[in-house]
Amino acid sequence: MKKRLFSGIQPSGEVHIGNYLGAIKNWVGMIDRYDCIFCIVDYHAITVEYDPKEMQNRIINAAAVNIAAGLDPNKCILFVQSHVPEHTELAWILNTVTPMGHLERMTQFKDKAKQHRDNINAGLFTYPVLQAADILVYKAEAVPIGEDQVQHIELAREIARKFNSRYGEIFPDPKEILSDAPRIMGIDGKTKMSKSRDNYISLVESSESIWKKLSTAVTDENRKRRTDPGNPEICNLFTLHKHYSSIEQIERINRECRTAEIGCVECKKILYENIIKALSPIREKYEELIKDKHSIIDILHEGAKKCKNMAEITMAEVRRQMGLT
Amino acid sequence: MKKRLFSGIQPSGEVHIGNYLGAIKNWVGMIDRYDCIFCIVDYHAITVEYDPKEMQNRIINAAAVNIAAGLDPNKCILFVQSHVPEHTELAWILNTVTPMGHLERMTQFKDKAKQHRDNINAGLFTYPVLQAADILVYKAEAVPIGEDQVQHIELAREIARKFNSRYGEIFPDPKEILSDAPRIMGIDGKTKMSKSRDNYISLVESSESIWKKLSTAVTDENRKRRTDPGNPEICNLFTLHKHYSSIEQIERINRECRTAEIGCVECKKILYENIIKALSPIREKYEELIKDKHSIIDILHEGAKKCKNMAEITMAEVRRQMGLT
Repeated sequence: MKKRLFSGIQPSGEVHIGNYLGAIKNWVGMIDRYDCIFCIVDYHAITVEYDPKEMQNRIINAAAVNIAAGLDPNKCILFVQSHVPEHTELAWILNTVTPMGHLERMTQFKDKAKQHRDNINAGLFTYPVLQAADILVYKAEAVPIGEDQVQHIELAREIARKFNSRYGEIFPDPKEILSDAPRIMGIDGKTKMSKSRDNYISLVESSESIWKKLSTAVTDENRKRRTDPGNPEICNLFTLHKHYSSIEQIERINRECRTAEIGCVECKKILYENIIKALSPIREKYEELIKDKHSIIDILHEGAKKCKNMAEITMAEVRRQMGLT
Repeated sequence: MKKRLFSGIQPSGEVHIGNYLGAIKNWVGMIDRYDCIFCIVDYHAITVEYDPKEMQNRIINAAAVNIAAGLDPNKCILFVQSHVPEHTELAWILNTVTPMGHLERMTQFKDKAKQHRDNINAGLFTYPVLQAADILVYKAEAVPIGEDQVQHIELAREIARKFNSRYGEIFPDPKEILSDAPRIMGIDGKTKMSKSRDNYISLVESSESIWKKLSTAVTDENRKRRTDPGNPEICNLFTLHKHYSSIEQIERINRECRTAEIGCVECKKILYENIIKALSPIREKYEELIKDKHSIIDILHEGAKKCKNMAEITMAEVRRQMGLT
């Protein structure tokens, strides 16, 4: 039997190529090997301030882009967290076996607390407990994550063990599958590609807009004139070439940039062509999907139904072991 | 229309006359004036270590004793918290509008953290948020409590207002109805009557056992010999007389104790007779109920069904306002 895999998807409105290369692409590669559940985590998203009027669009958009990028709902489950309230019920229970000290040590909480100084709420603090519940309510054993989530998975494992040792074995150990994708920098060349910094290329952006962004993207800043030789190792666009261009193109650019044989504009044009080629099918599929929001909602409800069945079975077992039947 | 009243009942196994005089008796008096919901709070009880094998008995027992003491299920709703998972779902949502600093200030958390040093968990910490959810999910406006819960109701009010101001008016202000019952001391005469200190008289205790406890109960410790005059003001049994004896008896004891006309044994016998008279109907009703656990379970399920309907309506409204439909 295939192992069950769980991953959360933030309903953050836009999905960019950093998200794709760092996560979605890996998930698509795992769909046949694992029994996959992908969850749009709206109950996590509300721990920071947001516009309630926008939330539904963000959720539907996240679903459409992820399906378009390869999360085929016939091969995996895609659903919305708040449609399966058992997540929050198990989170309450897991709260009672989670030491305060462990939560206080979480780096992400400390970072977010700094970022949202005027809204340091108990949801931000117990966020990793809900995350543990997301995973454990499906007894998932595989959790694909980035480096920044390792501490949370370690905590989920500890919570699972603590529950098991107090009430009896129910939860398997969830294990991380660490993404080996290098961090994708933004087109400002300075920080990680991210929505909040507006330095991203969306997965469903129009060709014109992509060219506009690429043509002004920062390259090796030491290469001031066309005749200056460049250094691909410190050029962020070269990282994108590694993901989107052919081996021959990558080798040529690596060579000719260093000797100033190729200029940044030509180099960007090659990258542009390749990115367009890769993203067009995703964008087309997305545009087709988003035209019919009802069918996306149907997919999400269908996914929630399957998840609710599984979650109810786990919760019945949990309640029985705890003497709460 | 009657205002809705909500109160939690700890499934603590035994219910003693301190619980009755301090809370249940008041509730019974409110049943006709309010639209009453009484909730056996098992999801709160799990925040400290317990024996899962005992929990069901504790819940059924709490239900039986409270019904026997006057919580007529035809006039109010009695149900078990974990049967209505919307409590935990709303608790998660309210977490996200509850500032960490507010929870850190809670006196009860600080006390419990001291008491359970090896199990200071996130459930203990967010306990008041679940309490707020218990109340708000039914839009209850009246919450009968003791002095020690005032801080939690203040927090529930703040949470309600915070939610309303962020997402739109949904929750009315919950207001406390402060019990004016004096604190009932244990038969050791030293601390508050409580199960954990084993200094209590159960509401359904046998007459023999009650006499055994009363006959050895501590009175005014300065009254060493039968001929010593006593001081009713510092005698804990005199407090019980005030609840169980007639005005004439109370006046006589108040007078004759001070002059040593009446001895402690005789005084205890009067109290014993009166307590027996008051408790016998409760004990008999309890014994009848507990013989048929299934009918108690039916009552609890019936209550949960009604509550679930109400809670679902509130949650639909909450999700809609938050953009999570």
